[in-house]
Amino acid sequence: MKLASLKHGRDGSLVVVSKDLSRATSASAVAPTLQAALDDWANCEPKLEALYEELNAGSSESFAFDPAACDAPLPRAYHWADASAYVTHVELVRKARGAELPESFWVDPLMYMGASDAFIGPHDDVLVESEDWGIDLEAEVAVFTDDVPAGTPAHLAGKHIKLVALVNDVSLRNLIPAELGKQFGFYQSKPWTAFTPVAVTPDELGDAWVDNKLHLPLIAKVNNVQLGAPNAGVDMTFDFAQLIAHAAKSRSLMTGTVIGSGTVSNKGSLLGSCCLAEVRCLETIASGKPSTPFLSFGDSVQIDMLDEEGKSIFGQIDQKIVKHTPPE
Amino acid sequence: MKLASLKHGRDGSLVVVSKDLSRATSASAVAPTLQAALDDWANCEPKLEALYEELNAGSSESFAFDPAACDAPLPRAYHWADASAYVTHVELVRKARGAELPESFWVDPLMYMGASDAFIGPHDDVLVESEDWGIDLEAEVAVFTDDVPAGTPAHLAGKHIKLVALVNDVSLRNLIPAELGKQFGFYQSKPWTAFTPVAVTPDELGDAWVDNKLHLPLIAKVNNVQLGAPNAGVDMTFDFAQLIAHAAKSRSLMTGTVIGSGTVSNKGSLLGSCCLAEVRCLETIASGKPSTPFLSFGDSVQIDMLDEEGKSIFGQIDQKIVKHTPPE
Repeated sequence: MKLASLKHGRDGSLVVVSKDLSRATSASAVAPTLQAALDDWANCEPKLEALYEELNAGSSESFAFDPAACDAPLPRAYHWADASAYVTHVELVRKARGAELPESFWVDPLMYMGASDAFIGPHDDVLVESEDWGIDLEAEVAVFTDDVPAGTPAHLAGKHIKLVALVNDVSLRNLIPAELGKQFGFYQSKPWTAFTPVAVTPDELGDAWVDNKLHLPLIAKVNNVQLGAPNAGVDMTFDFAQLIAHAAKSRSLMTGTVIGSGTVSNKGSLLGSCCLAEVRCLETIASGKPSTPFLSFGDSVQIDMLDEEGKSIFGQIDQKIVKHTPPE
Repeated sequence: MKLASLKHGRDGSLVVVSKDLSRATSASAVAPTLQAALDDWANCEPKLEALYEELNAGSSESFAFDPAACDAPLPRAYHWADASAYVTHVELVRKARGAELPESFWVDPLMYMGASDAFIGPHDDVLVESEDWGIDLEAEVAVFTDDVPAGTPAHLAGKHIKLVALVNDVSLRNLIPAELGKQFGFYQSKPWTAFTPVAVTPDELGDAWVDNKLHLPLIAKVNNVQLGAPNAGVDMTFDFAQLIAHAAKSRSLMTGTVIGSGTVSNKGSLLGSCCLAEVRCLETIASGKPSTPFLSFGDSVQIDMLDEEGKSIFGQIDQKIVKHTPPE
């Protein structure tokens, strides 16, 4: 099934969306918000599935689905852990600056805690104070879990994946070196995270969801020009079950935890890239310096994934970079 | 005023607690949960204050307040940012391992994003799988904010502080070096965060709340033996307004954001320490190696702060370290 949160208050209003993303129906009789549904998933899931079947059969009250009216599926969440599971990307970034990749990076996932209190919708502006901060997109896959007990091993973690969506993990590249140098991880350099209009249950992905990975090209565009479409199922060093097990090693994860894959990247980048940093690293390796700039105010970012029939699965992220003026 | 959340479902049940911590009254007529109150603070605050005045005057229905029945004031929050604002502590830790403190640490706050989806109550067990992970307490002060616009400067940030509480930021010391080495910040090494029974409005602190700092000794004990009582208002390099401004530099903070001070520490540690790591660093500097062990299963931790009359302001954190058996 496909779920979305229409903009409404702080937590949105839960709707069920038709498979073809054309129609929606209110889920308020089941749960007012997606977090409320996840809080009682065993009870809510079958009721939401029933609504989804009725909606697809055209037998329920519905209205036209407008992606621009969507907030993030969880407009605010209690936990957002973003990994860097495509180690080939990390290797490339390091190569561009002449640094070695520690061997441990192939067996021990990189993961940071991100800001989950203000996820943004698929068409929301990305507000940034300065272009000098090096504004970049990062196209990723993310999963939403239910409650995961502390110490859950990877072989038991996959069953905790309840929903899947795509993400634009906005990154401020020029703030990253100083933050990583302090060793406390990303903070100011990871300001906003945007989500596709809908999140879907794994069964909705059919054969493309295998081994806790999503085996389809992830399309990233800047100003509607394709930057890349690497396959999210290829070169993912750690699958989502392994990422969940990593996140839950020393404590439990509460329902509604969102775990991101990190920038999708295929070895050699033959199908292009999902962030400008990778493009700039390739340029640096090839010719000594980057030639592609980071994003400017007015630029737009599109992120999408198509099924085998060429239809969008999650709807599209389509958002503009806009200058933010802070309070004085 | 003083607020607490009694254990009830995922978000607790909001109560107003009397100044002397002896009585409580339900706040459900104002807001069912503390997060709900913070979501509409301008409207809820005066109503909660009115309840508090009635309770202290003995003119409202009330019941005996039981700290052991408390969850964290926000049992789950959308944002938990923990700083390391007592740079003298960082300097000491570095000195013990023979490392220099970068000059920038005195002007640019250290801050990491922590896990906010499962805060624990003042009397909850701290569940850890292995003593080999190096279990430690960290006694801290924390503030709860309302909505903070992106780019809010420090001189405007103090007014966003709505509540203050004490924290035990449980740390797994032996997991830290590998995580910091990866530069993505703490994750598995910061499993649980416990809070005092009540959070209080800054006005409740009187003259002790000056310049966005809490000028009172923070008492930390292990097995009811005092480890230290450094003054939280002394040697705090960055006050809470500066920490909020740091956290909000590139994005807004949503209401209910919790910002921690980091382990309270006074230069020279003459009044003792708020974590075992600091004790061990002092031992290492004095005699080449640490002699105080980290916490063992069965050990307990107490954290408290007294007013000028010797009465507890927030109630006491009093919790036991207990072995956790993960699923197989």
